[in-house]
Formats: sequence, C-alpha cells, structure tokens
Amino acid sequence: MEGSKSCSQTDTIGKVVIIAAGPGNRLSNDGRLKPLRRVLGLTLIERVVISCMQAGLSDFVVVTGYKGEFLRRPIERIVRCRCVHIDIVENPDWKKGNGTSLLACRHLLDKPFVLVMCDHLFEPDLLRDLLQARPSNGDSVLAVDRRVDRVFDIADATKVAIESRRIVAIGKEIETFDAVDTGVFLLTPQIFGALHAAQKKGGYSLSDGVREIVEKRQVLAFDIGEKFWLDVDTPQSLKRAKRVLLSGLTKPSEDGFVSHYINRRLSIKLSGWLSHLPISPHAITVASFAMALAAAFLFAATNTLSAVIGGFLVQISSIIDGCDGEIARLKHCGSRYGAWMDTVLDRYADVAIAAGITYGYWAVHHQPWVWLAGMVALAGFVMPSFCRKEYQLRFLKSLPIDVLTKLTKRDLRLFAIFSGALVGLQFEAILAVGLISHVYVARNLLAQYRRGIPGA
Amino acid sequence: MEGSKSCSQTDTIGKVVIIAAGPGNRLSNDGRLKPLRRVLGLTLIERVVISCMQAGLSDFVVVTGYKGEFLRRPIERIVRCRCVHIDIVENPDWKKGNGTSLLACRHLLDKPFVLVMCDHLFEPDLLRDLLQARPSNGDSVLAVDRRVDRVFDIADATKVAIESRRIVAIGKEIETFDAVDTGVFLLTPQIFGALHAAQKKGGYSLSDGVREIVEKRQVLAFDIGEKFWLDVDTPQSLKRAKRVLLSGLTKPSEDGFVSHYINRRLSIKLSGWLSHLPISPHAITVASFAMALAAAFLFAATNTLSAVIGGFLVQISSIIDGCDGEIARLKHCGSRYGAWMDTVLDRYADVAIAAGITYGYWAVHHQPWVWLAGMVALAGFVMPSFCRKEYQLRFLKSLPIDVLTKLTKRDLRLFAIFSGALVGLQFEAILAVGLISHVYVARNLLAQYRRGIPGA
Repeated sequence: MEGSKSCSQTDTIGKVVIIAAGPGNRLSNDGRLKPLRRVLGLTLIERVVISCMQAGLSDFVVVTGYKGEFLRRPIERIVRCRCVHIDIVENPDWKKGNGTSLLACRHLLDKPFVLVMCDHLFEPDLLRDLLQARPSNGDSVLAVDRRVDRVFDIADATKVAIESRRIVAIGKEIETFDAVDTGVFLLTPQIFGALHAAQKKGGYSLSDGVREIVEKRQVLAFDIGEKFWLDVDTPQSLKRAKRVLLSGLTKPSEDGFVSHYINRRLSIKLSGWLSHLPISPHAITVASFAMALAAAFLFAATNTLSAVIGGFLVQISSIIDGCDGEIARLKHCGSRYGAWMDTVLDRYADVAIAAGITYGYWAVHHQPWVWLAGMVALAGFVMPSFCRKEYQLRFLKSLPIDVLTKLTKRDLRLFAIFSGALVGLQFEAILAVGLISHVYVARNLLAQYRRGIPGA
Repeated sequence: MEGSKSCSQTDTIGKVVIIAAGPGNRLSNDGRLKPLRRVLGLTLIERVVISCMQAGLSDFVVVTGYKGEFLRRPIERIVRCRCVHIDIVENPDWKKGNGTSLLACRHLLDKPFVLVMCDHLFEPDLLRDLLQARPSNGDSVLAVDRRVDRVFDIADATKVAIESRRIVAIGKEIETFDAVDTGVFLLTPQIFGALHAAQKKGGYSLSDGVREIVEKRQVLAFDIGEKFWLDVDTPQSLKRAKRVLLSGLTKPSEDGFVSHYINRRLSIKLSGWLSHLPISPHAITVASFAMALAAAFLFAATNTLSAVIGGFLVQISSIIDGCDGEIARLKHCGSRYGAWMDTVLDRYADVAIAAGITYGYWAVHHQPWVWLAGMVALAGFVMPSFCRKEYQLRFLKSLPIDVLTKLTKRDLRLFAIFSGALVGLQFEAILAVGLISHVYVARNLLAQYRRGIPGA
C-alpha cells in the first residue's frame, strides 16, 4: 500500500470525504451518473480515490444522494480492486445543497479530514503537499489556484479572496478575488458547527459553511502552484482531462529517438482508444509479441511483398509495445510482473525477427557467413540490455546514457528493420544495428575500466 | 570505506595497535620477516589490517622492532592500497618483551583501543562482535577461545582462567584454565600504568601487564564461539591458515551442480597457486574468455580431435572462470567492475561457443535448420540470466531457485558441451541445454503469473 510511504502527518488525518451527491446535469444529460463518467477507462470517482491513495490516504467516506443506489456497486468494486476502505453515507437532503452532504457523515468524522469532490480530478502531489502544509493550530486549509485566467469556466468557479495566506472571502459571486477554490480541503470537525450556523441563516452549500469559518479567519489558502486540477463539469473539461492524462504518458528521459518522435505520439493516441475497452496490459504485450513473431515468419518467406508487410508489422508491434505500459499507467493497473514479462518477451521477439531475416537472406544467398553474421546481429539485440541490467545490479545505478545508448534501444532497432524492409535491406539493417550494439558494449566495458571504477 | 558501515560503538574506539616487533623465528628461519610472510598472496600484517577494516576500523598504529626498517615500505604500500591511516612506532626495547612495544606507542593512545598481533589471523566478525560486547564501565576485554582442545599449539598458547565472565588468571604456565588468549584485546589507557607496575616487578611481557589489571578483576572474557582465529606461528599453522582461507571460497548457495562437485574443487586449488603470482582477477577473466573463444574456433574446424580439444578448453575455461572471483576474495581486491565485466564476457563467450559448434555441425550436414536450431540454442544461453536479472531489478528479490534453475546455469551448460564434445555430440548438447533454458524462462513467466503477482 502507498500509505506506508506517506509523510507522518497523514497519520493524523482520519478520512477522506468524497461528495458524490449532486446530479451534475451539465455533463450527464445522457443519463449516466456523473461520478461514474469514465475518463480513459476509469470512472471519475475511481480517479479521485486513486489520487488520494497515491497521496497516502486509504480510508474514505463517499456521500451519495442523487440516484445513490446506482453508485453502491461501482464503489464496492473500487474497494475490492484498490484495497481501500470506503463507507457509503446516503444524504436524502442532497437537493438542499452540498453542505448537507458533509453534515450527513458527521458521525464518522471526529478528527481532521480531507474533503474532495467526486468530479474534481487532481494530481496526487497537490494533496500530498497540502497535507505537508497543514498548520499545527488546527486551522482549516483550502487548496487554491492563483492561475485564475486559466480556469476553464470562471463564471461557475468558487472564488476566494486572500490576505496574507488567509482566506478572507469565498463565493461564486464575490467581486474581487485572488484565486479559485480547487475543491480540495483539509477540514476539522469545527466545520459541522459552521454548517449548522450557515443553515440557520438559510445557507445550505459547503461554501456557506466555509464562509462561517472564513469570517473567523480560520481558513488558510494553500497555493497549488503549477499543479494540475480540473473540475470535470462540461464535455469540454472532460476532453481537457483526457488530453492532460494522455500527455502525462510521455517519458522524455527514457524514450529513444524513434519512440519520442514517432512511436509515442501514435501509441498514446492508440492507448486513448484502447483505454475504453476491457483489454489488459498483458493482452497488449502478448499481441505485440505475436505480431513480431508473425513478422519473423514473413521475413523468412523470401518474397519482397512479405518482407515489406513484415517490416510494417515490426513497426506496428514496436508502437503497440508502448501501449501496454501506457494503459497500465492510465488505468493504474500496472504490475511489476507485467513490466518483467514485457521485457523478456521483447527479447524473444527480437531474436525471432533476427532469425527470420537471416533465414530469408540465406535462402537467396546460400552462404554460411550469412548465418554467422545473423548470429552476431542476434546477440547484439540482447547484449546491450543485458550489459545495462547487470551494471545496474552491481553498481545500483544506471550506465550513463548517451547517443550510442539511444542507438541500441529497441525503438530504433525495430525502426531500422522496418526502414530496411521497405527497400529490401532488412538483413543489412540487422547487421548494422547488431554491430553498433556490440560497439556499445565494448565501449562501456572500456570506458568504465578507464574511469578507474576497478577500485570501487 | 567499510568504516561507515560499522556499529556506532566503534566510533569511540580510537585506534588499532598492531604489534609487529618480535622476530618470530619459528616461522621465518628463511630470513623473511614474520609480518611480511605471505598467506595466499597477502602478507600476514595486510590480512590483519583488512580484518580490522572489515570490522569498521581504519586508524592503525604498527609497532616495529626487529628489523623494523624493512617493514616501513610494505606498510606504506598498505596505506596506499587500502586507504587506511597507519602510524609506525619503533620500539628499540623490543627484545625485553612485547609489553614494551605497547608502551612505545602510549603517546598516541588516549582513548580505548584495539590491540592485535601481526601474526594472529582472525575473521572480521570476531572483532566486530567484540566491539559490540564492550562494557560501559571501562573494563578491558580479551577475546578468548574455549575450544582449548582444538588449539594448534597449546603448550605455547597463553591461557586464561575465567570466573563468571571475568578473567582471573592469565599466563602460559597457569595450571587450570578455561580458554586461550586469541591475541585480540579491547584495552583502555589504564593498561599503561599496569605495564609500568609489571616492569617494576621485572615483567616485560604484555601478559605481565594484563595480569596486573586481571588481578583487579577489570578484564572481561569475550567468548568467540565458533569464529576463526589462528596464531600463525609454525609452518603447520601457516598451512592451516591457507586451508581455512581457501575453504571459505565455496559458495554452496549459489554454485550449480558442476560448480559445486567439480569446478570449485579444482578452481580453489588453482586459485591457491595463482594467489602467489601478481595476476589480477581481470587478467584471469580475460584468459578464461580467450580460452572460450579458442574453443569456439576449434569447434568450427570440423575434425574430431579439434572438437575434443575444444571441449576440454571449454571445461578449463569454466573452471578458470571461478578463479577470478576467488582471487578477488582471497586478496580482497574484488571490484564491482570486475564482476560486471566477467558476467558480460561470459555471455559473449557462450555466444561464440554456440556459433562455433553450429558452424561445425552445419559444415557436415549442410541443412539450414541447423542454423535455426543453433540460434535457438544461442538465445537459450543468454535468456535465463537475462530473465533473472530483469526480475531482480523489478521485484528487488531473486527468482526462486530450483533444480531447473541449476540446469540453466553456466557451469552445467559448459560441462554439457564438454561432455558432448568428448563423444562428438556437442551440437546435440547445446540444443538440449538451449531448450531446457527456454523451458525455464517459459515456466517462470507462467509460474509467476499464476502466483498472482500481477496485482503486486
């Protein structure tokens, strides 16, 4: 569980309250309940739960209202799949205002707690930093965004005015404001008294309750800086959420040239589509592997067309090979097993492709050196990765990454084969890539020796 | 530096005094100075320094006497190679007794210190545990061995009598005794007053000084249990030291069948010889690699004799492959670089052998399937290791080890090739080993999947 890694401050935070009681009619005019609206394969409420988990929290209260009975089973599924505790509290008064929803779970909250909205996506670091910034005097904290010009729907946003880190006014219609309310709160049970006080004045919203403690200067503003949050309220904001989640899938530091400029752009698009289907990352890994095997057979058949098709299959396999990890990260269902299996099968796929291409070339040229050269290439497909892993295990750090490293990575290897196959030079392509790989290994052995690591 | 790993108690231990002032004529009648007597490539005094370093200490005082000028340069070499601090103190009165040697470095010792003899080998854990057992009241501690029946030369040993963990008598000639003095002490500066007092009574040995504080009941006995120590005093004890150091080179948990029952026995003998020569572990790694390459060429030449010679070379290369690590451990000159290079070159050696054998077989049979099968075997020589390393990096633990694992290890692979070559079946041997290796990888992928690690 992520919880064990969190800062010690979170130990004193009891629960996370997720308000999922409103109808949210702007988004769900198709009849779907808003908390169950899917964003790239996961429901909004599951994404909120996962963000809290990644910030170190695992004890939840979900307040339901509008059509709450339809939420029960999906929430039970989250409990099962994510290993969290969730109490469900029904709020029959949800129509009056969202303040009544928080009051409905009052009996479960005797310690400071986090309050979030079921339709407000946010990155885990936002909540993690909020928990770190918690004041010792028991004041409440509201995460606010000072980038008011960038807020999606400013008219509908709850605004706040801030004076020396304290919130001095809150509401949708205040005239001068410094930031907007992100919907992520750190509250103490004093909010319940405030909500009652607001109700007596006829205010039933959460903002009405918060305003009561704001007037006592007991609410700090926590500036989220550049962190991501989004009120998924309209079809446009839903699209934006998807865009942000997908753009987070690039790995600029790890990706090779081809991966960065070609594969990742296509695989992210593909992952966006695939995320809506019930396809596991494992299945994608196996599909990519099968495609590479099919390519190997096509290369072994000695006609030009099949080699070109094989080349395309290799490149498509390379692109799909990115999707398993992307889906795993998008749906938060990655496993170490999956990553391990993917790496092992990739090696087998490369070996099969090398064997297939070598056979195809030999079938035309009938020279034994073809096979020996093919073996050299085949070994070159495995050794750089082996060399890097062994280094990492011995030195507990990675080999330095440079241009030569990127030339030995799988994305470039498969792209070279694809390009070669288009012009009938797939054998030459594997030889070139194989030789570069061996140069890479030799260079590293010598460079590390010269760097005097022997005494390390 | 090892020092940083040591227990906090060692922080308060100032220095280690090594007494190297006596002539030690029993061992060195050939004119060699006793501290410079080599045991498997390292001098006695260097081995003592290394044991102390491994127990977390790195600040030394060496007291010289008999032909002390010859010790200076070897000690400076130790300082350079082992990154330790060593003060050299000359004791002109060494002939009077070893108590004068300790007194000679009195000016350097204002805190508790460790005292060891230049000719007493001991395992680092003995000193480490002694440091842990240090009493808080400032008493001295003497490491003692209760296995009196197993002491090499009991007549010459210093004996101690013990009552409820305190030493009550010490000397070579005491009549009733419970244990023998191992020559490893933890002393406080109070020993200097005791040595002076003993001198006034005409006693100039260390034992005379220790007897003074023993009589005050201020010396605790630390029972070393089953730990190794040895007073290297006679040619027989020198032989025993070598035997013990060599027997510590086996790795029962890691070694495969062939390694355990054949290779290790031979490689340890070989390492014993090689340790006397100025050959680095790197050189042995490269020699083993070159031998495997030579074997690959011999296999490619299609006559029976060269295949048999190739087989022998493969097995000899396999045996020598154990020596690099053994020499590194024997001489305490191992490096992570060496281990890394060894593993990478091993893979290349295996690839070359597979290619050579395949070529040799093809030259007779001229069938393309030979090459494809050879490629499968070649991949099988690399994939199990790749699979294990990748698992270790992902899961931070090793794949479970079972019989199948041991069948995929290099010792058995090379032995199978050697055995095959003797009867002209080296190609069949690589096919069998290669197939087993792929079964191993597939079995692990499935077994880990079934164990439900996907959710891990």
